Amino acid sequence: MSDFRIRPASSADIPAIVAMLADDPLGAQRESPDDLTPYTAAFERLAGDPNQHLVVAEHDGRVVGSLQLTVIPGLSRRGATRSIIEAVRIHADERGSGLGTRLIEWAVDESRRQNCQLVQLTSDASRTDARRFYERLGFEASHVGFKLSI
Amino acid sequence: MSDFRIRPASSADIPAIVAMLADDPLGAQRESPDDLTPYTAAFERLAGDPNQHLVVAEHDGRVVGSLQLTVIPGLSRRGATRSIIEAVRIHADERGSGLGTRLIEWAVDESRRQNCQLVQLTSDASRTDARRFYERLGFEASHVGFKLSI
Repeated sequence: MSDFRIRPASSADIPAIVAMLADDPLGAQRESPDDLTPYTAAFERLAGDPNQHLVVAEHDGRVVGSLQLTVIPGLSRRGATRSIIEAVRIHADERGSGLGTRLIEWAVDESRRQNCQLVQLTSDASRTDARRFYERLGFEASHVGFKLSI
Repeated sequence: MSDFRIRPASSADIPAIVAMLADDPLGAQRESPDDLTPYTAAFERLAGDPNQHLVVAEHDGRVVGSLQLTVIPGLSRRGATRSIIEAVRIHADERGSGLGTRLIEWAVDESRRQNCQLVQLTSDASRTDARRFYERLGFEASHVGFKLSI
């Protein structure tokens, strides 16, 4: 497995993260890598929220992966705190390298460190490989994920 | 439709909310309504987080419903902010009254007010009525929801 370093994202990483978001069958239709303005505004909002953890993976000084972890307190399950994983992206050059596993393992470890009792995520049903990937990592595909664009 | 009032939850609502969480086929196995200590700690954490909105629905002065809305900024979808609905519960006396619809409509309206572009939620696959309910409200069951207990 290659040697990756996972660290908090900085604003200098925005172009590399957005390029990965756009280099994706679903992302290609909904990202605008030529105009970073909305991403910069969103980054500032993320940076100001202590429950948001946007990280990148570096390899040989290049950003080759990203993941967003959100910590959510709640009353259910005896006041359990849960975490949600969003926006997992791996650079095309690094797919199959084990980096996806490394990023998810980072997210699970960080969730444990933050006293979460549950880690959850949703994956578009059209991403057929994702289900096997997450199940191999111990996740249970127990839920239906609903979305409403507003 | 009955006359419901939806308002932010206060700590005095914790017993009523926990009773609803426990009065549920899944919740019965994982809640402890006789010991409110963990719920009180979680409520304080929710109350201190400006991106968390725990609300209750009142009818004739009684708490008969609850919902948690979390606002999550992010880079993907051109820096879209999304919201997540969790812990929707309706008191047994009020099921079929339209309160579930009222609570979800409140969450969608509040998400719009907070400039979210997407509302999402997951529902346990064993809750077979939930799919029809959310689809009727315009949600698309486009995702698979994964969970990992840690």
